[in-house]
Amino acid sequence: MWGVRSGTALKRLRAAADGRAAAGLRRSLIARSPDFDGMIDLASNDYLGLRGHPRLAAAAIEAAREWGTGSTGSRLVTGTTTLHERLETSLADATGAAETLVFSSGYLANLAVITSLTAALGQHGDGVLIVSDERNHASLIDACRLARGSGVRLVVAPYRDAMAVRRLLASRAEESALVVSDAVFSVDGALAPAGELHAAARAHDALLVLDEAHAFGVIGPAGRGVAAAAGIGGEPDVVRTVTLSKSLAGQGGAVLGAPEVIDTVVDTGRGFIFDTGLAPPSAGAALAALDVLRGEPGRGELALTNARRLAAIAADLGLAVEPPSAAVLAVMLGDPRHAVEAREICASTGVRVGCFRPPSVPMGQACLRLTTRATMTQRDFVLATRALTKVRDHVGVDVNPTFKQ
Amino acid sequence: MWGVRSGTALKRLRAAADGRAAAGLRRSLIARSPDFDGMIDLASNDYLGLRGHPRLAAAAIEAAREWGTGSTGSRLVTGTTTLHERLETSLADATGAAETLVFSSGYLANLAVITSLTAALGQHGDGVLIVSDERNHASLIDACRLARGSGVRLVVAPYRDAMAVRRLLASRAEESALVVSDAVFSVDGALAPAGELHAAARAHDALLVLDEAHAFGVIGPAGRGVAAAAGIGGEPDVVRTVTLSKSLAGQGGAVLGAPEVIDTVVDTGRGFIFDTGLAPPSAGAALAALDVLRGEPGRGELALTNARRLAAIAADLGLAVEPPSAAVLAVMLGDPRHAVEAREICASTGVRVGCFRPPSVPMGQACLRLTTRATMTQRDFVLATRALTKVRDHVGVDVNPTFKQ
Repeated sequence: MWGVRSGTALKRLRAAADGRAAAGLRRSLIARSPDFDGMIDLASNDYLGLRGHPRLAAAAIEAAREWGTGSTGSRLVTGTTTLHERLETSLADATGAAETLVFSSGYLANLAVITSLTAALGQHGDGVLIVSDERNHASLIDACRLARGSGVRLVVAPYRDAMAVRRLLASRAEESALVVSDAVFSVDGALAPAGELHAAARAHDALLVLDEAHAFGVIGPAGRGVAAAAGIGGEPDVVRTVTLSKSLAGQGGAVLGAPEVIDTVVDTGRGFIFDTGLAPPSAGAALAALDVLRGEPGRGELALTNARRLAAIAADLGLAVEPPSAAVLAVMLGDPRHAVEAREICASTGVRVGCFRPPSVPMGQACLRLTTRATMTQRDFVLATRALTKVRDHVGVDVNPTFKQ
Repeated sequence: MWGVRSGTALKRLRAAADGRAAAGLRRSLIARSPDFDGMIDLASNDYLGLRGHPRLAAAAIEAAREWGTGSTGSRLVTGTTTLHERLETSLADATGAAETLVFSSGYLANLAVITSLTAALGQHGDGVLIVSDERNHASLIDACRLARGSGVRLVVAPYRDAMAVRRLLASRAEESALVVSDAVFSVDGALAPAGELHAAARAHDALLVLDEAHAFGVIGPAGRGVAAAAGIGGEPDVVRTVTLSKSLAGQGGAVLGAPEVIDTVVDTGRGFIFDTGLAPPSAGAALAALDVLRGEPGRGELALTNARRLAAIAADLGLAVEPPSAAVLAVMLGDPRHAVEAREICASTGVRVGCFRPPSVPMGQACLRLTTRATMTQRDFVLATRALTKVRDHVGVDVNPTFKQ
């Protein structure tokens, strides 16, 4: 029995879906097998190739046996185990952070740290300015939107523009400020100007929040990330977030920072307080991954070398690709339908690639997203070359010139 | 080298922490051992007692061996495996849902479903009203705040007040509406008036979003939750969210709903698209937990029976506690310092309980939060009685009368 305005809501959802279909923006979930259906993986974020590493699996298994499958509650109630504690110590050691705090996801780590820092800084009543890069990851965007409110102003800064950030900080009326940026931008793999952002933040007494999700494990000395590479990883006014689900091939995220920062998040971070702690098998796997990385610190550089090689192959074919700074590269195609076709062409050649369309990227900037791993083989490159050649032959070089900065 | 306004930000964070300390609102993370340091667990959300179940551990171990420790990417890129697909099918079977979508956490499931439904409904330009219960979980509050914006109005409704919701829906100017409520409120275990909320939503063409986090596994036929108990679980205008980290003793969350709802989230839900898929060991554990629940559908009723028994013990001692409707009960203490003392008294008696203080609860409503499990023993009740007696003797019955509705 439907009411007067019966069933409008579901009809509207269907109409919106039809609109997305017409624009080439429907998405479907295609389940893969354990071996990626026999395809070459140029799509995952498993940059160090640790996904199937026996030491990670052994640690997850041991944790499941010893701790069970769940942490059973919020980190503040029953969800903190000595396993989480060991993981936080190991993560501090691996990153040079003063303190670390582990979450069930990097997404929630970003939400919690930005909203709680903003609220604490805003308590003085003289305002907080948040300056957020226009191409930041969705989790940072959501975090900044959530933090916005009475006395908190959000300004979106141009892509990777430290001078613009400096001007915004210098001309602000608010006493406090946060500068928020991806360290490696997730779609095209470009690096944030971390040193310049920090200099601007330091000069104007702001905190710098850097999301090292796609950097940690890959960039900088022993994969410590972009902030470490810029020599600012241990600065007290730098807050870093990382994920445990990319280079570390598991699940979860963490905030790295000064004790004042971690205390703020523990006491008031909603995405920390009100979420179940990371599952023990995932915590165990992350610990093992950090051990592997410690013993083989060159894995990140291998992933980077492979990215440069893949980019050279794409550029030689005439495809629109920038020289990579991380283990991620974007092949610009513009039209989302071309991007979908190109992904299908790659799949039919035995190569799995990512296809990024709005809202993951701005309108008109659909692209293939290729990632590389430390463990790529010669055969991977042969097949990748074959797939990209077919893409070039089919869709041409349909670059949206607005992409270039 | 600090700038002109040098170091103000960290000083402000320290000052804010000092303020929290003075108000009894500092929190600390205390790492527990696998056996809860030998204490009786009246604090976790492991309602069915599955945390250490051998079938769950075996499934997590098998998944780690077969799939590795991480899903390697977004569900839309490489993070959907046939294991996730099986979990979604099993979850639909266990809940009677038309379709299901698994997330890495229930928090993100709530963020994604509410923001994406609001955005899709709002495309018509004639407005969306969100009516959210005043005691909803932080993840629902954050979701509603994120969804708010141009053309989207958020109204907070009184606690468990279906008539107020009906009035708000009836008098709205907006064409579309969402009603958002916890199914079981996480602090005091009270149930939402799900049938009445649905009748109001149906009469006024709104969608009802119910978070079954603390209900699933415990309430209703075979633990299917509050909506199922009210006979509305399968209605197309009811959207449910669940967690895999409480009754199912693992990690993750899910949205259950009509195909139109799931399509909307897959295409546009930011917390779905931009998050790494659930780790395979956690997906495997959840599958096994659903199998256990299928074979032993009475586990939820056992947890409820134990909650009623514990509440009777507390009431007999003169403590302020309501008759429980779920496996959660709140012993009201009012002052956060009393709540902390009471938790310590319980701990020294060998009983681990939760202590909820602002911002987890409104100011003046600090409480002990006790949870029960299907697997509680006579010894658990003896120790619990001893601990609650000491609490009563120490802090008395310091109820904040505003808590009673």
